[in-house]
Amino acid sequence: MNNTVIFTRKVNFYETDAQGIVHHSNYPRYFEEARGFFLEKYGFPYYRVREDLGVDIVLLKLDVEYKKPLFYGDICFIHITLSSMDRYFFTFEYKVYKDNELVTAGFTKHCCIDRSSRRMVSIPDQIKNLFKDG
Amino acid sequence: MNNTVIFTRKVNFYETDAQGIVHHSNYPRYFEEARGFFLEKYGFPYYRVREDLGVDIVLLKLDVEYKKPLFYGDICFIHITLSSMDRYFFTFEYKVYKDNELVTAGFTKHCCIDRSSRRMVSIPDQIKNLFKDG
Amino acid sequence: MNNTVIFTRKVNFYETDAQGIVHHSNYPRYFEEARGFFLEKYGFPYYRVREDLGVDIVLLKLDVEYKKPLFYGDICFIHITLSSMDRYFFTFEYKVYKDNELVTAGFTKHCCIDRSSRRMVSIPDQIKNLFKDG
Amino acid sequence: MNNTVIFTRKVNFYETDAQGIVHHSNYPRYFEEARGFFLEKYGFPYYRVREDLGVDIVLLKLDVEYKKPLFYGDICFIHITLSSMDRYFFTFEYKVYKDNELVTAGFTKHCCIDRSSRRMVSIPDQIKNLFKDG
Repeated sequence: MNNTVIFTRKVNFYETDAQGIVHHSNYPRYFEEARGFFLEKYGFPYYRVREDLGVDIVLLKLDVEYKKPLFYGDICFIHITLSSMDRYFFTFEYKVYKDNELVTAGFTKHCCIDRSSRRMVSIPDQIKNLFKDG
Repeated sequence: MNNTVIFTRKVNFYETDAQGIVHHSNYPRYFEEARGFFLEKYGFPYYRVREDLGVDIVLLKLDVEYKKPLFYGDICFIHITLSSMDRYFFTFEYKVYKDNELVTAGFTKHCCIDRSSRRMVSIPDQIKNLFKDG
Repeated sequence: MNNTVIFTRKVNFYETDAQGIVHHSNYPRYFEEARGFFLEKYGFPYYRVREDLGVDIVLLKLDVEYKKPLFYGDICFIHITLSSMDRYFFTFEYKVYKDNELVTAGFTKHCCIDRSSRRMVSIPDQIKNLFKDG
Repeated sequence: MNNTVIFTRKVNFYETDAQGIVHHSNYPRYFEEARGFFLEKYGFPYYRVREDLGVDIVLLKLDVEYKKPLFYGDICFIHITLSSMDRYFFTFEYKVYKDNELVTAGFTKHCCIDRSSRRMVSIPDQIKNLFKDG
């Protein structure tokens, strides 16, 4: 399985901190935006996952490596890859580039839960099938 | 009606921006924290409003005047006053002080909505009664 | 003076709250993004204001009226207008539309400060001239 | 080296998302607050690190494991431990408890940089000495 999508993002002023750089807590948000973009590209936006399937995608694990800072006004390119998926769990990898330089890398591990019971369910076929032939 | 409560807040680093000061979008959040503290002081915390009464408090209007900046590590004192309440609407006023100097002032206007229908309802008696003799 | 620019924005999941809607503190951030877009459209992005002119734009007053909620995945159109500018102060007005319906309105009042002294300065000519013939 | 400090934190409404739980991007912020509290407990608050030593503490790596959600109004206890420190790098570990149950675990790896050059410097003695006899 190897599906990479590139999501372009411009840094907002309110995402900077008093060090003059993007505060580290914004990268998990950039990653989330990239995941949303990824699902859209595959034709199944997250709001439909929630509404049509009654499923929430939750985050189990987050890992970020900060190599270079980003500054206000920077444009970065987030390469997001669905790197693994089994019956219950799936993992995305992220590489954030600015001017062809890797500034941040990370991954997130997820599962699906039923929206009302908040219990883990197996990944719905409608999601699995999107990536079958990736 | 004149009920003032003082909420003490310390500025977090992640609330600063590249100007080195607290980003203006955090003051509405400080105000929200002050409202939560206010309701608790009156014995009816917001999660009980939501769970026991099935009601959400929504914001209709927000007004903030920024007089002086706040910096990382600053301790400020938010004076919150319930300044008016009728059948449907209520208004809080906020004065944020640092070292006895007024740094920010604002108000917020609210109403209550039913959590499932998201339609406006009259303010529940349990809330009105809290402030009757204020 | 009447310069209106339309900025398109999609709602992120992390901008929602437990009421299921966009948290009100995000609108000042949307407005800031719209201002950045506005300055860019006029050929003078904010990072150049900061770096070339040594000037920070600060917020003096913020006013938001919340008419309808926004939800995750919504696309909204922020109409931003520079509604007044004198020697020291300028004001932007914002109207946020979704499906041709006005969901939020607001304005922000600003001045310029010297980045090192943090004292107010008159609005630099390079900024004033942008809008002279607007 | 084993220095554990417990930081108590109450969940704010604006930290929740449309899943009704604390959005995952807030935990790095809670960790940062805990670090600030940790430095204060040891008598050397971060603003003094910045101002007296001219040093910024930067984040190199972030790791979070989400075991249970937190909800609005929850009170959690963040156990923060300085788990390693050598000439250049130091690592904090975090365990977040609610009702004696571990809800989140994580670590962050840091180094110090000179505030003007933004280049890595060895950890200042004033910081190292704080923890010598920990």
